[in-house]
Formats: sequence, C-alpha cells, structure tokens
Amino acid sequence: MEISSLGDRILNGERRALARAITLVESGRADHRAQAAELLAHLSGAGRQSLRIGLSGTPGVGKSTFIESFGMMLIGLGLRVAVLAVDPSSTRSGGSILGDKTRMERLSREKNAFIRPSPSQSHLGGVARRTREAIALCEASGFDVVLIETVGVGQSETVVSEMSDLFLLLLAPAGGDELQGVKRGIMEMADMILVNKADGDLKPTATRTCADYAGALRLLRKRPQDPEGFPKAMTVSAVEEHGLDKAWDEMQVLTKWRRDNGHWDTNRAAQAQYWFEQEVRSALLARLSTPQARFDMERFGAQVSAGQLSPSAAATDMLATLIAE
Amino acid sequence: MEISSLGDRILNGERRALARAITLVESGRADHRAQAAELLAHLSGAGRQSLRIGLSGTPGVGKSTFIESFGMMLIGLGLRVAVLAVDPSSTRSGGSILGDKTRMERLSREKNAFIRPSPSQSHLGGVARRTREAIALCEASGFDVVLIETVGVGQSETVVSEMSDLFLLLLAPAGGDELQGVKRGIMEMADMILVNKADGDLKPTATRTCADYAGALRLLRKRPQDPEGFPKAMTVSAVEEHGLDKAWDEMQVLTKWRRDNGHWDTNRAAQAQYWFEQEVRSALLARLSTPQARFDMERFGAQVSAGQLSPSAAATDMLATLIAE
Repeated sequence: MEISSLGDRILNGERRALARAITLVESGRADHRAQAAELLAHLSGAGRQSLRIGLSGTPGVGKSTFIESFGMMLIGLGLRVAVLAVDPSSTRSGGSILGDKTRMERLSREKNAFIRPSPSQSHLGGVARRTREAIALCEASGFDVVLIETVGVGQSETVVSEMSDLFLLLLAPAGGDELQGVKRGIMEMADMILVNKADGDLKPTATRTCADYAGALRLLRKRPQDPEGFPKAMTVSAVEEHGLDKAWDEMQVLTKWRRDNGHWDTNRAAQAQYWFEQEVRSALLARLSTPQARFDMERFGAQVSAGQLSPSAAATDMLATLIAE
Repeated sequence: MEISSLGDRILNGERRALARAITLVESGRADHRAQAAELLAHLSGAGRQSLRIGLSGTPGVGKSTFIESFGMMLIGLGLRVAVLAVDPSSTRSGGSILGDKTRMERLSREKNAFIRPSPSQSHLGGVARRTREAIALCEASGFDVVLIETVGVGQSETVVSEMSDLFLLLLAPAGGDELQGVKRGIMEMADMILVNKADGDLKPTATRTCADYAGALRLLRKRPQDPEGFPKAMTVSAVEEHGLDKAWDEMQVLTKWRRDNGHWDTNRAAQAQYWFEQEVRSALLARLSTPQARFDMERFGAQVSAGQLSPSAAATDMLATLIAE
C-alpha cells in the first residue's frame, strides 16, 4: 500500500488504517521503519493534538473498569477516545495488559473508541518509541483524548509521564500505612490522584485515603506548571460511575490553565527534547547489539576474564573495532 | 620520566612513585591516558594481588576513626595498607573525603601506610575507572590490603563493591526503626556488617543493633560465595580499638574459604568483565560529549523543540552525523 494513501485514510479517521499503521510502527524490520518514518512525517503536517492522559495504578485498583467508565463518559460528551498501553513486562508474562478487550466490553464496541493492547516487547526503550509513535498516529486520526495506561513496573511511570500532558495516579482505598507504599517520585509526577472504589462499604475508607493523599500532595513543592490547588486528590467510583465527570472538569481546568500560560507548549517541547536525547543514546548503544559486535564483545570479554587484558585496554580495543566496522 | 622506570620504582614499593602514578591515571589528558595504559600493562605482569576491602557507612558512623584504628592494627601485624576513596559528590562540596589527612593522623605518618584522597570529579564513571587503576597501582606496589572507602551516595556502593574482594558495611548503634534505613540492596552487598561505637553508654545499644542486623542477614538468601555463618554482623569500637582483631580474623576466614573454593578468582574475573562492559558503554556514549557532538545535539534539539523534526527523525540524523565525523 502507498504510504500517502494510508496517511490520508488515517487523517480521515479510519480505524482500520490506524490499526494497520500502528502495526507498522511496532515492526522492527528496516523497511517498515523507513515506511513508518515517512508516514509519521506525512502526518505531522496536519498539526493535530489530542489531550494525552497518562494513567498509572497498581494491579487490582480497577484500572480497566476506570478506563471503561471514564472512556464511555467522554464518548457520551461527543469525544473520540483512544486507549494505549505501556507494559514492559508483557513479554515475560506472555500476555499483555489490555490484551483482553472483554475487560472493556462496552468501550471496545464504540465506534468513537480505539483500544490497542501493548505489543509484546521486552525492551522498555523500544516500547517507549512505539507508544510515542502510536500516540502520534492517534492524534493524526483525530482522537480528542489518548489514554496511555501503564502497570507501573520499574521505569514505566517515568516513560508514560514523559509522553503525557496529564498524569493520573489511580489508587485504592487503604489504611494510612499503605500511603507510604507510593514512592515520592511517583507522587511528584502525578497531576491528579484518583482514589477509586469510593462506593459501598469502602466509601468512608476512600474518603479518608483521599484526605491523606491530599495532605501528602500539599507537602510537595509547588510546580510552576500548576495553578492554585493542583496537584489534586479526588475520590471516584468507576463501578458506580461517580465522580468521573468532576474529575474530567478538573482535568480541563488544569489543561486550559496550562495552555493559557504556555506550559502546554513548553512541556511538549521539553518532552520532544527528552526523547530525542534518549533515542540518540539508545541508537548509539544499539551498535553493541549487532551479531558482529556481540561476537567481538565476547571475544574481548573472554580475554578480560582470563586476565590477559585489562578492562580498560579491552574497552579501547573494542571501541576501535566497532568504529572500524 | 620513562614509564618503565616509574614502573620499576612502583614495583620496588616507593610511595612517591605510587603517588605520581596515581596522579597520572587521574589525568584526563590523552597523552597521560596513553602513558597510564602503558604503565598499567607493564605492572600487570607482576601479578601481585592485595586484599581489596570496600567500606561503606553513613556520615557520623566513625569511618575515619575506624580506618585509622583498623589500619594501625594491620600495620602492627606487619602488613602494608593503602587507603583510597570513592566520592562522587566531592566536586559539589568542593572538598573530598579523606582530604583531611589529620583525620587519620597516626596512619598517615606510618611508612607502611598510603592514604590517597579522592580526586575532584563529578562523573562516577570516571571516578570508578580512576579508582580501579589506583587499586592496580597499589597492588603492584606490594600493599597487602587496599581499603576503598565510599560515602554511600547514589550508586557509589555498587561501584565499590564491584571492585572489592570483601565489602564491609559500618553502621552506628541505633533503634530498631532505623534498621530499615539500610536499603535491602546494600545489605545484600555486605560480606560483614560492623556496628561501631560499641563502647561506653552506647555499648548495650550496639549489641542490640548488632543482633538485629544479624537477624536481618539470616533472612537474606544464601549466596554461593559464602561459607556457613556469613554474611556476619559484629560489634567493634574504633575508639577503644576493640573487636577489630576479631573482625580481621573473620575476614581472613572468609577470604581463605573463597580462595580455596575458587570464588576469589571467579569474582575477580566477573568484576573485570563487568568493568569491561561498563567502559565500552561509557566510551561509546562519550562520543556525544565532544564539542562538535554537543553542537550538533543542540542544533537538532532546537529543531525538535520547535516541532520541525520528530525526536526519532532527529536522532537518526544525529547518528548519521556522528558516524560521518
């Protein structure tokens, strides 16, 4: 297929074209990479922007139910919603988050929704690039909101927050002790904390937990990209579909303020810069992953282990070999 | 000076030659690097090995006093002792650990002791290479024991443990709560935990703290490189010079067992392999630090921030530029 024709169909909002393009950016084949680059360059001219919402939360917090309820509410408001996932662990488990679309049965049937499971991939760097490119495709395809879900393993929260306009932390009602289970670094990334399951017997606990997190957020240093009162903690019930509209209102208040004060553009520029630097570094280090380089590394490594060559001398030789190749 | 003559003087145990050689390996100048490589290759032929003891502990735990008392005891046993430091923070603070030799007044006057403050250097990778080379110089110079001190900032414990035969953790007497202040990863690196200040009013607390850590160590998974009963927790008093001989006895038991069972050689080979891989990676990334590469990174980065080029496209262009240079 012609890349320009695929591009036009994406700009036209065709979901099958979008799905096909995401498969293309997920491919590691060199010719696919070249086509993907051509496609993305073609589409970037459209200049479309979605609201990119990063979402993290530990297993069992009700993330799928939240995405389904929140997504359905947005669709009810006439918006188009795409859902992507960053899951560096999916190779190990053999499955993938969002793999089971039945977890979001209603949303997956909506024509204004697009759900894409995370690809099986062990290397977080690769996952990051593919997800960023999938986001760009969703934006070109005219989605108003792109939700990027992460399981919160290792560095995945940082990865997702570096590609989001807003970062939400979904938490469960819990005793005060467990508050400390959320790492300070993750708290500092959050634009909003949503305490889910504020329904039935758990409602009082959820309210208390929310107050605890609100207190913890107030102790963090004020960030220039936040208006008064943010970051914010709120209770929601994904099951009872309660509080989701209020949370969305707050997200819009925050987004509008950031747009009006230049933080939206500044943030996107800084993120692009961040990913540029990351990609240069990982592309440089990828030169050590070719079959020839692996062979040379093993050859020199064996001499180092045997004490025939110092680590530094071997590294110098290896670099010279690499550059000569 | 001729490198071979400097080498001979080091092999002869001359301290001024050793100090001069360490200054050479600390230099970043290309001609100095070449001379350092020649010197190290020359000296490695001697095949001398010291017992390399890594030592970490938080500020205030009495590390300097411990090194002084422990070092003096070793010298009393007829051994030669070198003390080096890994301090990635020394640039920021302007000073350096071990900078003030008066903290080890007695040891610094001994002819069988050699104390070298850590060089001012911000980049931990550079500190690591320089320290490894300084260790190699001390070994060639015939020191029986090389103590490598670290302040325990960031990754410095990992760095030191990856260049040590034994890793000691020096801790202060404390309440049970503070036990958790020692990260699990650090505990897992330790071959021995020494609870210092087991003297005067603090003695009962030190004994209790030691029992707590001994219990914590028993909960860790058994490592193949440990005989029965290790890793071990003991109390010492650097001020009263108490328990140091017992600690040294245990270190020798552990070292002998590891030598007899092949773990000493295996460990040194694995460490050499580790540093080889680290050096290749950092040498590769160093290609981004040349003035020309920095200029190119800024040029492409500006286009990325302005939205004229995608991060991936810019990274591809940057790599091509780098390889063409």
